[in-house]
Amino acid sequence: MRMYDLIMKKRNGGALSEEEIRFIIDGYVRGEIPDYQVSALMMAIYFRGMNEKETLWLTMSMAESGEMLDLSGIQGIKVDKHSTGGVGDKTTLALAPMVAACGARIAKMSGRGLGHTGGTIDKLESFAGFSTDIPTEKFIRNVNDIGVAIMGQTRDLAPADKLLYALRDVTATVDNMSLIASSIMSKKLASGADAIVLDVKTGSGAFMKERADAFALAEEMMAIGTNAGRRMMAVVSDMDQPLGRAVGNALEVKEAIATLRGKGPNDFTQLCMSLGGCMLLAAGIAQEEGKARDMLEKVIEDGSALAKLSEFVNAQGGNGEMVYHPELLPKASLIVPVESPKDGFVHRITCDEVGICSLILGGGRQTKESSIDLSVGIVLEKKVGDFVKKGEPLAYIHANGKEQCRAGLERLLSAYEISESKRKEGPVILGVLKQV
Amino acid sequence: MRMYDLIMKKRNGGALSEEEIRFIIDGYVRGEIPDYQVSALMMAIYFRGMNEKETLWLTMSMAESGEMLDLSGIQGIKVDKHSTGGVGDKTTLALAPMVAACGARIAKMSGRGLGHTGGTIDKLESFAGFSTDIPTEKFIRNVNDIGVAIMGQTRDLAPADKLLYALRDVTATVDNMSLIASSIMSKKLASGADAIVLDVKTGSGAFMKERADAFALAEEMMAIGTNAGRRMMAVVSDMDQPLGRAVGNALEVKEAIATLRGKGPNDFTQLCMSLGGCMLLAAGIAQEEGKARDMLEKVIEDGSALAKLSEFVNAQGGNGEMVYHPELLPKASLIVPVESPKDGFVHRITCDEVGICSLILGGGRQTKESSIDLSVGIVLEKKVGDFVKKGEPLAYIHANGKEQCRAGLERLLSAYEISESKRKEGPVILGVLKQV
Repeated sequence: MRMYDLIMKKRNGGALSEEEIRFIIDGYVRGEIPDYQVSALMMAIYFRGMNEKETLWLTMSMAESGEMLDLSGIQGIKVDKHSTGGVGDKTTLALAPMVAACGARIAKMSGRGLGHTGGTIDKLESFAGFSTDIPTEKFIRNVNDIGVAIMGQTRDLAPADKLLYALRDVTATVDNMSLIASSIMSKKLASGADAIVLDVKTGSGAFMKERADAFALAEEMMAIGTNAGRRMMAVVSDMDQPLGRAVGNALEVKEAIATLRGKGPNDFTQLCMSLGGCMLLAAGIAQEEGKARDMLEKVIEDGSALAKLSEFVNAQGGNGEMVYHPELLPKASLIVPVESPKDGFVHRITCDEVGICSLILGGGRQTKESSIDLSVGIVLEKKVGDFVKKGEPLAYIHANGKEQCRAGLERLLSAYEISESKRKEGPVILGVLKQV
Repeated sequence: MRMYDLIMKKRNGGALSEEEIRFIIDGYVRGEIPDYQVSALMMAIYFRGMNEKETLWLTMSMAESGEMLDLSGIQGIKVDKHSTGGVGDKTTLALAPMVAACGARIAKMSGRGLGHTGGTIDKLESFAGFSTDIPTEKFIRNVNDIGVAIMGQTRDLAPADKLLYALRDVTATVDNMSLIASSIMSKKLASGADAIVLDVKTGSGAFMKERADAFALAEEMMAIGTNAGRRMMAVVSDMDQPLGRAVGNALEVKEAIATLRGKGPNDFTQLCMSLGGCMLLAAGIAQEEGKARDMLEKVIEDGSALAKLSEFVNAQGGNGEMVYHPELLPKASLIVPVESPKDGFVHRITCDEVGICSLILGGGRQTKESSIDLSVGIVLEKKVGDFVKKGEPLAYIHANGKEQCRAGLERLLSAYEISESKRKEGPVILGVLKQV
């Protein structure tokens, strides 16, 4: 088999076989196939696409290029969730304890990543002492004991995907649906869950700007997972403005805690209920949607979801008491209102601008080596459709330096568009996809 | 400027500017832009194409990436010829002296290359002592003195093309018309000629299998040359069977000498007359086609074309007497007939099989390091449309070893297809393109 012939085959519109795709991925990981041939193939795939089988084989080859996490030591169905990301996305923090409190098993690998804020791991480190750097045995024991554990992604998780993504990122071959789907799913399949619920976001603040693209990506990932023998569900949700009100690490933890107390922002609560319902259904804990919702509402009402978060934080070395005393979480020294320049309705809040504001304040990483300030961020007082008077606060900036505060404030102001007429608010949940 | 953005632009169907193309080529030659980005761009170009301006700028950037030969020391219009290659293509050997004898100035760079036989330089080395390794001053002096000189390609001729072609060759991005045209033309423009005549071949033995593709390539190259200020003409000719009768280095030299005596094979003579006419017109030596043909016929009849070859060989250190005594050229020890297995008409002679036969006999290079046996080869007795009786020779194998001779004979037999009905012979010249 020659790589040249496989590039030519794809270039001419042919479909690659399982053997051919394994040859490519294995050869690339071993350094036997050079970058320049793989990037040419990726561009050919960009133009020619891949069929459902090719996409599955690529995903499986990448998943199997490293360690496949063995979760057979966990009793019951392990359920995982993946979000395509956005601004203010603290979903795992509230969702995992809610679902675990209902009896589901969540064994989740999570990342730090680059972005406007830190990743789930960074956010969790707001709890003093919390660590995701735990051995697999403890990870499995914790899931068996309390229903939920989160560990950092091992270096050896789908290394082929890491290599391939880095190459695609510098050769303008990222935005192909099959390649995006197989990249995400290769890591999920290697992480060992039996059931996977996808949180696919769309809108100006999401990777998928267009709604149709978000549904297409969700379907592509569902197909991969189903073909790989996983139970799959997906929620397509709106990310045209930041999710909830808090953007920033400790601030988002506080919002997640409030949500577990039944006092979270409406959009974020709705998303957690929808995703939670899917997770309970996929895990076989509930048999129908109505029942799943009832269970979720109950664990919030009776405080068991909040208690689960505390238990989970304690189990991974953190101070679980902080769940009941969020005032102990990291706090910024300056809290400054962003005043509205005029009367009117909030017409738009540009996600990217809010994200950059968070970055300016020090809440995110610009390079892998950057350190993060967990305490800083933004709390949005007004969201799309809200009325605001001139001088009233649109948001509050939480900062640790006057310079960053000033720059962040300016940035946040430019994120808000105020207009005279009220814009009709759209739904948060745009669609739920179930396995056929 | 970032390479990433330029790949994206082309991928999305945009046109690159002159500045952008120079950035790519200069950066690639300097090693600042990696192979994997360039191969992704090449694949995007394969799918999106390049417009006339982009193609010109790419060609100019590659031509100017190395030394641009300065031929201003030569009086008059310098005319060059380029062939896209085929089996039995000894055109330069006869054409250059013919045209020079008519008063044109031919300052030609030529290569050795890999192939079924050697390149023009190898063939010329059949004349004992002949060398193309001459300094530029002598090269220019010879053109001024006798009208023709041939030198080997310098290492620094269009180095960007060398790099880019090597990359395209392993990433399935060779067969795009604009890229092929710019690769050829970059070397021609760097070689300094004022007028260029293209010999574009089509058919089973040519790079361009389809006639329409050959015309498209000819037009693409004409456009580049014209836009670069060169006088351009092109001949599209048939390469569905080997050109002439001889395939092999010294054997082809003998056939060229016969042609200069007016005793060459019909197809090869026609091609030389057509290309020669174009060269005389492009060089401004003749003003109309009829006149050009008269001049070419005259220099063959009066022996001045043959004398020019002898003069040219002498001027570059070779034994010009061999032109008048071709029996002194390298000769193989075995000459064996390939007998027809049955009565019938020659329906097809597969070029590739004849070429491989030549390679087996030792007449070509398989790697850059291979040495060539100048004496071996094939002389075809029967060509397409000819009648042959069982046992009559279809061809003669010239070999220097029984083993190669046997293997070559077997191969050559498989090249011939004999059928009961006579196939209509097509014309050699399929079209002539003039500058508009």
